[in-house]
Amino acid sequence: MARKKVQKIKLPKAFRAKSKLGKAPGAINYVGGRKEQLTKISLLEYTNDSLKTQYPRPLKLKESISNEMTSFCNVVGLAQENIIDGIGKSFNFNNLLLEDVVDTFQRPKIEEFDDHVFGVFKMLYLNQEDLLVVEHMAMVLIEGTVLVFQETEEDVFDGVLNRIEQKFGRIRSRGADYLFFALLDAIVDHYYIVLDEVKDKLELLEEEVYNKPSEETAKRIQLIKKEILRIRKWIFPVKDLVNRLIESEHQLISKDTKLFLKDTLDHCIEINEDLTLYREMSTSLMEMYMTSVSNKMNEVMKVLTVIAAIFIPLTFLAGIYGMNFEYIPELHYQNGYFVLWGVFIAIGIGLLILFKKKGWL
Amino acid sequence: MARKKVQKIKLPKAFRAKSKLGKAPGAINYVGGRKEQLTKISLLEYTNDSLKTQYPRPLKLKESISNEMTSFCNVVGLAQENIIDGIGKSFNFNNLLLEDVVDTFQRPKIEEFDDHVFGVFKMLYLNQEDLLVVEHMAMVLIEGTVLVFQETEEDVFDGVLNRIEQKFGRIRSRGADYLFFALLDAIVDHYYIVLDEVKDKLELLEEEVYNKPSEETAKRIQLIKKEILRIRKWIFPVKDLVNRLIESEHQLISKDTKLFLKDTLDHCIEINEDLTLYREMSTSLMEMYMTSVSNKMNEVMKVLTVIAAIFIPLTFLAGIYGMNFEYIPELHYQNGYFVLWGVFIAIGIGLLILFKKKGWL
Amino acid sequence: MARKKVQKIKLPKAFRAKSKLGKAPGAINYVGGRKEQLTKISLLEYTNDSLKTQYPRPLKLKESISNEMTSFCNVVGLAQENIIDGIGKSFNFNNLLLEDVVDTFQRPKIEEFDDHVFGVFKMLYLNQEDLLVVEHMAMVLIEGTVLVFQETEEDVFDGVLNRIEQKFGRIRSRGADYLFFALLDAIVDHYYIVLDEVKDKLELLEEEVYNKPSEETAKRIQLIKKEILRIRKWIFPVKDLVNRLIESEHQLISKDTKLFLKDTLDHCIEINEDLTLYREMSTSLMEMYMTSVSNKMNEVMKVLTVIAAIFIPLTFLAGIYGMNFEYIPELHYQNGYFVLWGVFIAIGIGLLILFKKKGWL
Amino acid sequence: MARKKVQKIKLPKAFRAKSKLGKAPGAINYVGGRKEQLTKISLLEYTNDSLKTQYPRPLKLKESISNEMTSFCNVVGLAQENIIDGIGKSFNFNNLLLEDVVDTFQRPKIEEFDDHVFGVFKMLYLNQEDLLVVEHMAMVLIEGTVLVFQETEEDVFDGVLNRIEQKFGRIRSRGADYLFFALLDAIVDHYYIVLDEVKDKLELLEEEVYNKPSEETAKRIQLIKKEILRIRKWIFPVKDLVNRLIESEHQLISKDTKLFLKDTLDHCIEINEDLTLYREMSTSLMEMYMTSVSNKMNEVMKVLTVIAAIFIPLTFLAGIYGMNFEYIPELHYQNGYFVLWGVFIAIGIGLLILFKKKGWL
Amino acid sequence: MARKKVQKIKLPKAFRAKSKLGKAPGAINYVGGRKEQLTKISLLEYTNDSLKTQYPRPLKLKESISNEMTSFCNVVGLAQENIIDGIGKSFNFNNLLLEDVVDTFQRPKIEEFDDHVFGVFKMLYLNQEDLLVVEHMAMVLIEGTVLVFQETEEDVFDGVLNRIEQKFGRIRSRGADYLFFALLDAIVDHYYIVLDEVKDKLELLEEEVYNKPSEETAKRIQLIKKEILRIRKWIFPVKDLVNRLIESEHQLISKDTKLFLKDTLDHCIEINEDLTLYREMSTSLMEMYMTSVSNKMNEVMKVLTVIAAIFIPLTFLAGIYGMNFEYIPELHYQNGYFVLWGVFIAIGIGLLILFKKKGWL
Ligand SMILES: [Mg+2]
Ligand SMILES: [Mg+2]
Ligand SMILES: [Mg+2]
Ligand SMILES: [Mg+2]
Ligand SMILES: [Mg+2]
Ligand SMILES: [Mg+2]
Ligand SMILES: [Mg+2]
Ligand SMILES: [Mg+2]
Ligand SMILES: [Mg+2]
Ligand SMILES: [Mg+2]
Ligand SMILES: [Mg+2]
Ligand SMILES: [Mg+2]
Ligand SMILES: [Mg+2]
Ligand SMILES: [Mg+2]
Ligand SMILES: [Mg+2]
Ligand SMILES: [Mg+2]
Ligand SMILES: [Mg+2]
Ligand SMILES: [Mg+2]
Ligand SMILES: [Mg+2]
Ligand SMILES: [Mg+2]
Ligand SMILES: [Mg+2]
Ligand SMILES: [Mg+2]
Ligand SMILES: [Mg+2]
Ligand SMILES: [Mg+2]
Ligand SMILES: [Mg+2]
Ligand SMILES: [Mg+2]
Ligand SMILES: [Mg+2]
Ligand SMILES: [Mg+2]
Ligand SMILES: [Mg+2]
Ligand SMILES: [Mg+2]
Ligand SMILES: [Mg+2]
Repeated sequence: MARKKVQKIKLPKAFRAKSKLGKAPGAINYVGGRKEQLTKISLLEYTNDSLKTQYPRPLKLKESISNEMTSFCNVVGLAQENIIDGIGKSFNFNNLLLEDVVDTFQRPKIEEFDDHVFGVFKMLYLNQEDLLVVEHMAMVLIEGTVLVFQETEEDVFDGVLNRIEQKFGRIRSRGADYLFFALLDAIVDHYYIVLDEVKDKLELLEEEVYNKPSEETAKRIQLIKKEILRIRKWIFPVKDLVNRLIESEHQLISKDTKLFLKDTLDHCIEINEDLTLYREMSTSLMEMYMTSVSNKMNEVMKVLTVIAAIFIPLTFLAGIYGMNFEYIPELHYQNGYFVLWGVFIAIGIGLLILFKKKGWL
Repeated sequence: MARKKVQKIKLPKAFRAKSKLGKAPGAINYVGGRKEQLTKISLLEYTNDSLKTQYPRPLKLKESISNEMTSFCNVVGLAQENIIDGIGKSFNFNNLLLEDVVDTFQRPKIEEFDDHVFGVFKMLYLNQEDLLVVEHMAMVLIEGTVLVFQETEEDVFDGVLNRIEQKFGRIRSRGADYLFFALLDAIVDHYYIVLDEVKDKLELLEEEVYNKPSEETAKRIQLIKKEILRIRKWIFPVKDLVNRLIESEHQLISKDTKLFLKDTLDHCIEINEDLTLYREMSTSLMEMYMTSVSNKMNEVMKVLTVIAAIFIPLTFLAGIYGMNFEYIPELHYQNGYFVLWGVFIAIGIGLLILFKKKGWL
Repeated sequence: MARKKVQKIKLPKAFRAKSKLGKAPGAINYVGGRKEQLTKISLLEYTNDSLKTQYPRPLKLKESISNEMTSFCNVVGLAQENIIDGIGKSFNFNNLLLEDVVDTFQRPKIEEFDDHVFGVFKMLYLNQEDLLVVEHMAMVLIEGTVLVFQETEEDVFDGVLNRIEQKFGRIRSRGADYLFFALLDAIVDHYYIVLDEVKDKLELLEEEVYNKPSEETAKRIQLIKKEILRIRKWIFPVKDLVNRLIESEHQLISKDTKLFLKDTLDHCIEINEDLTLYREMSTSLMEMYMTSVSNKMNEVMKVLTVIAAIFIPLTFLAGIYGMNFEYIPELHYQNGYFVLWGVFIAIGIGLLILFKKKGWL
Repeated sequence: MARKKVQKIKLPKAFRAKSKLGKAPGAINYVGGRKEQLTKISLLEYTNDSLKTQYPRPLKLKESISNEMTSFCNVVGLAQENIIDGIGKSFNFNNLLLEDVVDTFQRPKIEEFDDHVFGVFKMLYLNQEDLLVVEHMAMVLIEGTVLVFQETEEDVFDGVLNRIEQKFGRIRSRGADYLFFALLDAIVDHYYIVLDEVKDKLELLEEEVYNKPSEETAKRIQLIKKEILRIRKWIFPVKDLVNRLIESEHQLISKDTKLFLKDTLDHCIEINEDLTLYREMSTSLMEMYMTSVSNKMNEVMKVLTVIAAIFIPLTFLAGIYGMNFEYIPELHYQNGYFVLWGVFIAIGIGLLILFKKKGWL
Repeated sequence: MARKKVQKIKLPKAFRAKSKLGKAPGAINYVGGRKEQLTKISLLEYTNDSLKTQYPRPLKLKESISNEMTSFCNVVGLAQENIIDGIGKSFNFNNLLLEDVVDTFQRPKIEEFDDHVFGVFKMLYLNQEDLLVVEHMAMVLIEGTVLVFQETEEDVFDGVLNRIEQKFGRIRSRGADYLFFALLDAIVDHYYIVLDEVKDKLELLEEEVYNKPSEETAKRIQLIKKEILRIRKWIFPVKDLVNRLIESEHQLISKDTKLFLKDTLDHCIEINEDLTLYREMSTSLMEMYMTSVSNKMNEVMKVLTVIAAIFIPLTFLAGIYGMNFEYIPELHYQNGYFVLWGVFIAIGIGLLILFKKKGWL
């Protein structure tokens, strides 16, 4: 079970370079692997006292949004490029923004516009079958509204939705910028799960290296090193982005919300430090593996040397008395054979003591 | 086929140091390997409504350019230094600028002058025979005009030309600074192809290391490490240059175009991150190769040790009963020979069990 | 005894990711391993002339604090989340602050609020059984008061309390900011003990590597490398935090106290340099270990080679005269056997001299 | 021939520490290895229309300089400390400046004074016997004059002198600051020669590593690594110095000349990047060497193992039938000997096939 | 002799952590190893025309200092804490300053106070028995006076004293800030001696690695690596401190003296670069050592393989004709024995040629 979690979902291979070449910048071109997901929209709106859910059609989305309530608009499925384009047009979003919404290769980013703040992040979570999923998402903060674009229905926002519905904490009494923060915070909180996975694997591998290192162990260490490098690419930039939000002077982000973002920043710093730590641990692990391979070789060599060093001289001695010279006086001694056995045993024991002293046994 | 792409076109070796020594700065001195390419000029001009192509002679170029249209002037072939000099003089370009236009060793750069912006970049692309080509190019943004200088006719601008001719996207309705951006963006987009090549090779090598590592594998890993170092030299500086363009206050670059340059910057950041990632992956690969060599050696040593450890003592025993002592009682036992065979087999099986337990078999 | 100190106290494993997921930010959620410790409060108050100790109930704490005296309020035990919450509410502390008070995973931090300064640190010390303890603590500087939150009764503040009670030094005549500094200084001073432990272990390991390296040695080196990495995580950030306090313009921190903080900064710098130094020393140690493994292998191989090189040819010679050819003239020489012994000895001595010259003996 | 170039000229060892200890700062103390070179002065002066050469005596130098012409004053030979002191005094140079002029250990530097700009650089060039020479030089830019101090007559300024004499380029029509730039540019241009040498050597070594690596190869790689480290020390700082000249606001350096310095800066950046590249290539080379040593060892071990694994068991079998037991039935079989040969051959071929399958042959 | 210099003086081990724990900051607590040195004071005062030496008692020191002369007050021996305290009190020095004066663990630092500048440095020098000594020192620049605190009578200031007494250079005509600089400059100049030692050792070790590497060699390389790390700790920070003095606006440091400090800065930069260089050289040395160990192993293995590969098959052949089968036709051939010798020799020579071709001989 624990092993299974490690596996990532295989998506159809996406080709960035080919699909982008020659296109105008701002072309809305979904390059991810979830092409079968139809675009669905849900609109959750709340004030401190009321709560409302709608499922508007794309072209009606803009006008469905209430000005009096905080609105959480969730757009699931990015493959229907024309729908995304339509939604974007109705909100007057820049084409480059829309391109990034559907560009699953886009690295995490925050961009501030006059009347909206745009962010791209990667959600990392375990899905219902306990497999690690990486999902591209984008979110836009407008006056009173947060728009979220994501590839699939599963996400990391159940906790946030729960707090909204159950009226836990302060979320219902605060505005859209707090919602924006809460979603970002949920994404960052889920990064800890990936880190825990990595840590678990490192500890298992450490035990493997110490107890029964095989050639597979080395491959697994390399694999986790590569995985850490890849996770870094998705997670590392988030810290700077959160910091930029805190230092931003955009009118949509209140001073109050920045206090909460500082808490998220703390977590981002810790996550990045842990990633660095795990990376160094994986390097140490490889080093330890090499050491254990060398030690194994040493042990093998010692066995060979001890056996060869004892028996090769003895065989030579036996060979001497197997010679057919006419005159070999020892052969005619009455106890020659038994004396020689004594010599054999003496040499053998002598060498064993010598090797014992050398610490080879 | 995939293998063939990896090869780079061999150009006649260019000697930087020798050809430059003792020359005055600003000497126009083509040091590249495409000396046979005659200089050709084409001039594509467009407004939102019209499109015009000319092939003016070098000395007529300046006066052929229309002030009412956006002009894309493409100068192909840099070996005819006097022609480049003539064109440069007619536009009042600095000699140092012209030196950089033909200096194929010049690293990527952006330089702002009072009434023009000058850039040097390297185009990386697959040519018609699917070989990787590195081509030096320079471009100058003047009011209403972009001048491009390149070594050969092939380039990475087909997509841009297509969008101009087919009136795709917004290019026809925008000015020369957008054209400047579009060309730079096309160059950066093509870097993804080189990165894809590198990634493909790394993955092939990884499989090779895991399945059938040979001495050739190590050479190939070193080769790709060197290739990554070289590609870095051409690609890495571009990020900072694009960033400088975005922060520039030059009157020729509009605020609108800077928005698009930010998109290019995003791509440059990603490309640089990937280059760093691939470099670390190539280092890991070498490490894994060394591990596999050590493991192979271990296996060889184990086979040697097991065989030697079993048969050397047995040979000694056989040697004993091959001795010619007059009195060796065992030789006269009726079943001596068969008992000894039993001893041989017992020792052999005993040692095999021992080595099995040690995990050597 | 020295060995025992190295061990860390094992705490019940704490799961960060799971316990935090889906909770609202600011949820007061103790995730540490000292859940059995009941929350106790002591309140030590002093002026230059008087000294008073109280043990107020949590809800009475705020009103028990005297405005005329400097107050040191020590809250021990963080598992009773509602009590911490109550105390925090009475002082009007932000929920995010309270979350950090009980979040034992929180990395060291300083946060300035309008009327208080908040800090989180890790105390590292040897407990009464001489085991290394890591304890999470938080402290808040308010006008005239320092609040300390810690997990267990043991701490590093005995020296400070002593100076207050005995009226040593300047502490009794200074305000709460000096007390805040004195506590922080005590924490930093105790880091030296951990560093001394690390240094002792490195020196023991160095001796082990030089004199009797075993497979255990390598594991111990890796262990200390990992320990240094972990200690770094707790200690390293403190330097920047102290520096920020020195450069802070918060009205609660007097210019005078900053002079003392500079002394603490000096120590932080030295500690961080030492940590870096120890890390490089542990890397060198591993390198030396590998070298010694290689040298050992070389020695083993030389013994094998010398013995095999001498006796294998001699055995061949003996084998020759053990052949049963009808006509082998040497077998009939009168002194054949003795001559052959001469040859055996000559070859043996010759090879020994040769190997001696090669430096293999 | 190519090999010979690699050698550096051996100079008498210079002892920095000893010769400087206890001396007052500003003591003029030549510590280089060219003590036999007498100090000679030449003075080349030019305007756009005229050209004049003089060989003034040291004490007459100051007054020999024309105010109407641009003057290039070349002082060769730094061992006659009193002469250098006299020249310096006549120009009112600071003692610390003069100390640096003769201190061949001084690293590259630029220092701006009220009415002069002072620079120290290292010239690297191939001398008439094609050996690499490192020569300490200092230059001072005064109003209308450039003073150059160098250790020997050979230098890198032939190209500049040629352009002055032949009236090539713009040098005759520009002032002393352009001359200062032109000399610095000549120094930097010659660094390419050293880099080309390093690159040539790296390529030769690469071939050696791949085709016939010997113990000498490793020494050569270490040698070039050390050489790169040393060259770096002389060349690396120049980039920052040129940059500082460009950003300087000294009245002696015109805006026009700064444009040319930017070109030199480009070259410095490229040179430093190449140095870094070569360093990483030399590291890779050592890694590749180690790999090839390991592979060689593997091959040797395989040969040993194959031969031992085949013949040791066969020898045992032969030993069995060499035993002298009274009753060994096989010995009396008519075709026993031939059957045994069959067994020998079968075992041998079987093992060969096995090892072939393992890829050891 | 040269070897002896390398040794450092062993001092009684000093325990930092223990002696500091629980003490108030500012406690004057000598933790060094020169506890037996009584505190002695000498006071050298000079103007351009006069020179005066006194040996005042500690409590009279302050009033003994002349306002008209530049005063160099040398306090030797830091173990008598009450005397140091008394002197400090008379000059109104901060307690934290006095703590640093006697804290031999204090890293190099510069601290500016309103009317004095305080510095801590480490003197590194060869003592009268040519052993390397590390000595803690502190110095304070007051108006017209420099106070030096050092542990022992030996120091690095003989040259400075000489220049004062002999009226060499400019020291007599300048003020206390120049004296402060001159002392600091003397300290830095002596660092070159340590660097020369390190360089000498590296060169000796390099020769050892190339010519006769033993296990001791590896230990020596590790030792020098550790020594470089430790020296770095003492020397590295000085560069930044000197730079801070140059940029300081303290009224006690004249613009003139800053010019001299720039010269010292030059030396600090060079020293730090050299330290970095030596560190990389020591790393290369270890690498080379490992290479030579591997090469040695290769050589040993080749000898073993060649001997085994030749004689094991021959021994097998001889064994065959030692078998006792009733019918072995070859045994009865008249020249069987001689033919077999031919076969032996042919196989031996054939294999030798083969191994020669493989480059194993
Ligand atoms: Mg994109
Ligand atoms: Mg989803
Ligand atoms: Mg969910
Ligand atoms: Mg959070
Ligand atoms: Mg998990
Ligand atoms: Mg927090
Ligand atoms: Mg044998
Ligand atoms: Mg150039
Ligand atoms: Mg082209
Ligand atoms: Mg094309
Ligand atoms: Mg693009
Ligand atoms: Mg491809
Ligand atoms: Mg984009
Ligand atoms: Mg927290
Ligand atoms: Mg506690
Ligand atoms: Mg305590
Ligand atoms: Mg302290
Ligand atoms: Mg201890
Ligand atoms: Mg201090
Ligand atoms: Mg100097
Ligand atoms: Mg010269
Ligand atoms: Mg020359
Ligand atoms: Mg140049
Ligand atoms: Mg050359
Ligand atoms: Mg240029
Ligand atoms: Mg201190
Ligand atoms: Mg002293
Ligand atoms: Mg002295
Ligand atoms: Mg000096
Ligand atoms: Mg010396
Ligand atoms: Mg100087």
